This record gives sequence, C-alpha cells and structure tokens, in this order.
Amino acid sequence: MILAQVEGSIVATKKNEKMTGSKFLLVRPLYVDSPASKEFKKGSSTLVAVDQLGAGEGELVLIVQGSSARNGVKDKEQPVDAVVVGIVDTIDIARNVIYKAH
Amino acid sequence: MILAQVEGSIVATKKNEKMTGSKFLLVRPLYVDSPASKEFKKGSSTLVAVDQLGAGEGELVLIVQGSSARNGVKDKEQPVDAVVVGIVDTIDIARNVIYKAH
Amino acid sequence: MILAQVEGSIVATKKNEKMTGSKFLLVRPLYVDSPASKEFKKGSSTLVAVDQLGAGEGELVLIVQGSSARNGVKDKEQPVDAVVVGIVDTIDIARNVIYKAH
Amino acid sequence: MILAQVEGSIVATKKNEKMTGSKFLLVRPLYVDSPASKEFKKGSSTLVAVDQLGAGEGELVLIVQGSSARNGVKDKEQPVDAVVVGIVDTIDIARNVIYKAH
Amino acid sequence: MILAQVEGSIVATKKNEKMTGSKFLLVRPLYVDSPASKEFKKGSSTLVAVDQLGAGEGELVLIVQGSSARNGVKDKEQPVDAVVVGIVDTIDIARNVIYKAH
Repeated sequence: MILAQVEGSIVATKKNEKMTGSKFLLVRPLYVDSPASKEFKKGSSTLVAVDQLGAGEGELVLIVQGSSARNGVKDKEQPVDAVVVGIVDTIDIARNVIYKAH
Repeated sequence: MILAQVEGSIVATKKNEKMTGSKFLLVRPLYVDSPASKEFKKGSSTLVAVDQLGAGEGELVLIVQGSSARNGVKDKEQPVDAVVVGIVDTIDIARNVIYKAH
Repeated sequence: MILAQVEGSIVATKKNEKMTGSKFLLVRPLYVDSPASKEFKKGSSTLVAVDQLGAGEGELVLIVQGSSARNGVKDKEQPVDAVVVGIVDTIDIARNVIYKAH
Repeated sequence: MILAQVEGSIVATKKNEKMTGSKFLLVRPLYVDSPASKEFKKGSSTLVAVDQLGAGEGELVLIVQGSSARNGVKDKEQPVDAVVVGIVDTIDIARNVIYKAH
Repeated sequence: MILAQVEGSIVATKKNEKMTGSKFLLVRPLYVDSPASKEFKKGSSTLVAVDQLGAGEGELVLIVQGSSARNGVKDKEQPVDAVVVGIVDTIDIARNVIYKAH
C-alpha cells in the first residue's frame, strides 16, 4: 500500500456500468524522504482511487493498488485498480509520532 | 486509476484473435502538479488503452490498468491491461472546479 | 498496452519447462513526446516479450503486460508478463497519420 | 521481491473490515547500487507493508508486491498489495557477505 | 520479462512458511541503451528473485514479475513476484550477436 493525501474528487457520468455509484477521489502519494525526516514529501503525480470509507479532503489514507484493489470494494467485478483501505490516525518512525490526524 | 487525455488512435490488423473489434486509443497520462495547481501536467509518455465508451480526442478519461482492465471489457479473456472506464465531467480540488468538460 | 519496437531476439535453452517453444523478442518501448509531436521517443530501457504473431525486427507492436499477458499466449499456465498482441499498421494523432507500416 | 528496511508503523482505526488486526509497517526500499558496492542505497520513497512475521524497526525484510502479496497473509480476501515474506539474515555479493543481521 | 544479471544471494531463515526451501537471488536489471548499442546498461536498483533453474553469479537471466511469477514456481500458492524463467544463451540485435554465454 502507499500513503496518500486526498486532494479532490472526480465526476464521470459516462462510465463503465459496473462503476455506477463509485466515488472517485484524486489523491497524491506521500513519502517519507529519509528515516530522519519528520515531514512528508508530496509526490509530483496524482492518482484516482475509489473510496468506500468516507475519506475527506486533506486526510491521509492507505491506498491499495492492482488486482488487490478489487478486494477493497463491495463488487469484485468492478474494474478498479486503486482503492482507499484505511484512513490514517498516526504514523510512527523510530518511536516518534510524525503524523497524528486531528 | 489514472487521468489521461485521448490523443489519437491505433490500427493493428494483425492482432491476437481475442482482440478482434477492439478500439485502441493513444492516451497521455495527466497529473495535477501540486495541490495549489489548477492546471494539469501532461505526462511525457503515452499509453495504449482499449475503449468501449466512445471517448473522443481531447477528452479526459479514467484509465484502469493491470488485471482489473479485463473487468472493464466485455470479454474477460482479452489480453488487455489498460481500458477506459470513465469519461471525466468535472474535477474538483479544495472545492474549486479545476476541470469541466465542454 | 504500450507501443514498442522489435529490436532483437533472445535464446534461452535452459528455461522453465512451460516456456518450451516460446519466442522471446527484445523490444524497446516507444512514446509520443507531446501531442504536437510527429515522432516517437525511444525508451531508454528494453523489455523481453513473447511473440506468437510473427513480428519482425523494426516493426511496431502492441505489448500487453502483467497477468493479462497470459491471455495473449496459448497456454495460460506460462509464466509470461509481456506478450505481443498486435502489429501496428497506423497511428493517428489529431487526424494526422504519424506512423504507417511499410 | 524487493529488499526494504522497516522504519516505522502506521495506525488506521477506520479501515476496510477485512483488514481488522493487520499490522502496517512503513518500509523503505533498499538497493545495491553497483556490483562492487558493499553498501545499500536507500530509496527516496516509502511503502506500507503488512507484516505477520514480527519484523522490528531497523530490520531488513523481503517484501512481495502485487497480487502475490495476498498469498503472504492468512486471509487471501484481504486487499493487500505489499507484505513482509522474510526477515533477512545475510546478503552475499560475489562471495562477500555485505549484510549480516545482528 | 526483463533481462537481469545474477549478483548475489540472500538468506532469510524467518520467512513465510510457503517459502521454505526457496532460493533467493539478488539480481540487477540490464537494459540495451539504444538499438546501435552492443553493451548492456546496468540498472541502478536491484531486485530479489526466486530461482529454480540453478542460475549462477554473473549469468544473464530472464525474470518474470507480478502474478505470472507464481506460474514459474512449483507451488502456485507461494507469495512470489519475481522468478527466474530462463538462463540466457544469446541475444541478437539487428542480426549481431551482442551477448553469448560462455
């Protein structure tokens, strides 16, 4: 999985029929630059993920990609390759909390 | 999924027999550079995606990749790894509409 | 799928038994640099793909990758992750033919 | 698989129900820069992997990615794409031990 | 598949139980830089692949990645994503033999 931050949302009326009702989020991958770092580095590219957990803009999420994404939605027949599987509460590095959700 | 823009089309007469009738689009991945950005950054590489939604040149689409692409076509036995699953109407970032289809 | 050009071939006598008889091509991914471009940009890395269509050196092909590659060969039990699924005749961008096979 | 070093952990209370009880590690991919090198190069990005082997911070692990990650957890229905499948004891290059766990 | 060179080996005593007896090789991806090149370019990162063909250090191998790697080992339930499927004898580009195993 990767860490990502929710930045926006996408509407696509004309879509594959199995995707009816899906909520598409625009998310940005986040990295921790070095073990000593206490900040995230924002990726320079964005990804579109399906969300069923109600993640809101600004929240940090765990994104599963590839075929396993289909295990993260209700209908495994959906053509999805990126899904939110968790909303992050805390991230610890070397026993320091580097992130804590508000 | 990724955002991409349709740029062209490809004809391949000699192809895997399961691909008969498939429409191949040349698409370019699009990214949003930073959360403050209101413009897309065009990827420097192109991808070939199968389309069953009738996406036209210039339109923004959602592309599913990998094994899940097979769930986006009628025949799951097709050897496809990139398929158009939605035609984008609007993209919002921080409550600003940064893209709206004409 | 990606566009690629056939550059060479590989022989491996000692191989997984399910691969007996497979023809391995060395292929180079090709990209279209910008929508205004009429030329291909050659990738700086190469890939090895199985071919069952008889693609020859210099030809442009469509390569399917990942698990879907197994749908592009006769025996789905083969451990393949890149297969030629089409030999390209023409590529159009914005109604201009940027490539036409000889 | 890739080599990676465990750097931290992540807590996500609100998560996909199939992920209940999963332990999420923040791991950093490691590379060996050149065959002559005896040091690891740390990747500049991080990954989130599920662990069932009890890997601790600082340890070097083998991470399996993609659909095969589901074979590395007890419940194959879990939406996971990166799992710890081994804790590294030694790494040899050209008969030199370049890493040995304490 | 990709070309890679075997550089070393990895021992992990504590591992997923399905991996018992697996031999892990440290391999480096190799590319051919340009069609005119007769040399390989060594990738700057390394990968860990399971080997069942007896590949030795210095040999060039074909590596299959992703879910298809499971078709390259005896037990398809193994959590593997990179497996040696061939040991390269010769590589030809434009009818020139650029590599021949000793």
